[in-house]
Amino acid sequence: MINNFLIIGCGLIGSSILRNVSKNKIAKKIYVFEKSKLNIAKIKRLKIPIIIVKDIRKIVFKMDMIIFCTPMSEYIKIISNINNFFNPESLITDVGSTKEIIIKDIKKKIKRNTTWISSHPIAGSEVSGPEYGNANLFKGRWCILIKEKNTKQKKLKYLASFWKKMGSKVLFMDAKKHDKIFSITSHLPHLIAYNLITTASEFEKYKKYNLIKYSAGGLRDFSRIAASNAIMWRDIFFSNKSNLSESIDLFIKNLRFFKKNINSKNSKLVIKKLIGAKKVRKKIIKLKQDINKPDFGRT
Amino acid sequence: MINNFLIIGCGLIGSSILRNVSKNKIAKKIYVFEKSKLNIAKIKRLKIPIIIVKDIRKIVFKMDMIIFCTPMSEYIKIISNINNFFNPESLITDVGSTKEIIIKDIKKKIKRNTTWISSHPIAGSEVSGPEYGNANLFKGRWCILIKEKNTKQKKLKYLASFWKKMGSKVLFMDAKKHDKIFSITSHLPHLIAYNLITTASEFEKYKKYNLIKYSAGGLRDFSRIAASNAIMWRDIFFSNKSNLSESIDLFIKNLRFFKKNINSKNSKLVIKKLIGAKKVRKKIIKLKQDINKPDFGRT
Repeated sequence: MINNFLIIGCGLIGSSILRNVSKNKIAKKIYVFEKSKLNIAKIKRLKIPIIIVKDIRKIVFKMDMIIFCTPMSEYIKIISNINNFFNPESLITDVGSTKEIIIKDIKKKIKRNTTWISSHPIAGSEVSGPEYGNANLFKGRWCILIKEKNTKQKKLKYLASFWKKMGSKVLFMDAKKHDKIFSITSHLPHLIAYNLITTASEFEKYKKYNLIKYSAGGLRDFSRIAASNAIMWRDIFFSNKSNLSESIDLFIKNLRFFKKNINSKNSKLVIKKLIGAKKVRKKIIKLKQDINKPDFGRT
Repeated sequence: MINNFLIIGCGLIGSSILRNVSKNKIAKKIYVFEKSKLNIAKIKRLKIPIIIVKDIRKIVFKMDMIIFCTPMSEYIKIISNINNFFNPESLITDVGSTKEIIIKDIKKKIKRNTTWISSHPIAGSEVSGPEYGNANLFKGRWCILIKEKNTKQKKLKYLASFWKKMGSKVLFMDAKKHDKIFSITSHLPHLIAYNLITTASEFEKYKKYNLIKYSAGGLRDFSRIAASNAIMWRDIFFSNKSNLSESIDLFIKNLRFFKKNINSKNSKLVIKKLIGAKKVRKKIIKLKQDINKPDFGRT
């Protein structure tokens, strides 16, 4: 059991961790540092026994574990504020969606001898805020822990056991590989969804058609993930921009080829592409990343 | 009540119409013409009283209403086969997703004095086949009826009342406008989903990363609509290629600008885009094209 556990930033992810840690008695004392008064009010309503931290500098030293759940652009500001108070024995982690640049920035800034091992739980939703938190959010989901050459084995094991208690399946990866993989499986899909929704909206204005009302034919499905938290996604796009650029270029290259094959009515190549996508879908279901139950739209 | 009602092609949509027409006693006799023996066996298992048509030419003349639910590329072949047997009194319709070119092709081919008024129910799923049909598939959904200058008012009214009995909300539109709107709200999203999934798959092969297992972070949501019927979508892409080309170009233009703003870390423009997408999502929910319930992934 963790003696003193600090959650910094308590939105959807932070409050999901809070609920789980409390429910499964993973920590004796849970401290929460959250800058939004509105969020604090929402967290209090959960009636979970916690200590709301006003002056974070006063309590940092006694923490056994600290987890950053703020947008990534907040990390350095917070570290600057509490850097002198870190305890070399504390395990510090975060839940950010990109790793390589952020870890470099953290290492540049943070006091020597502190232990920061980065986590990325592959879970979330299009909604934000502590009221949407869910103790089971991490259940059965991957959680990637960033393991580099100098990562301390003992602390890594400890972090892995923490996420396993949260219900996650833990995997180790280096930051570079992590960012490449998620540029394709998560960052590009979100970016594309945002781009599709704003393109439709632009088209609506410019053609003067009232088209959003017909979005049930496909557009709707993209709008959900394009409703995710804007600050969080800006931070993700900025901090993984080089991998993302490469993914965008590959995507555009393929899209141009697809367009060419549609315009020349190349049935063979178009069907090949469409069937290829169906095979990936089957793989996704086989890997239990989605269920096989057909979806007819949510009503 | 319709005396003699013929469904040509009985997959997901055809069998959903079949179930509804039977359940709500919309027709006295339901005839089904379906070329796949496998599908016929599946339809028989539904135990709905129907007449399976072997020689379609023999029964066409006595039909009061005929609905084409095959892939659009089959229409002309079928019309050629039964053209001489059409009754000028029959109301003929279809459920195809594009209209302008198809209607031109039909008009060129079909016997004079026949009445074909095209329908497009905005409903479907990623699954295909009569076993997935659902009597409530059209409930509360838009159904677009194509109204041109020479469309017969009486027949149009009759068709509208048919779809209303199916639970649809009926709207009239000309073919040109229809195809422009759905190039954005349906065809482009499907094309983008297909392109995203195949790009991810290509990336996986080329980088030798096993990445599909991490698809819960966003990719998964696209894979569902990219699992839709390949023949049907090839037909849609081909028959709306000129609008689709325009939409793709606008999409790529916006994507390049998005990429540029990410690479230059233009926070203001990126945030503006992300918040703009969120507003569209709110509009979609307000227009009851989706529900507000957060999604944490399907398990």
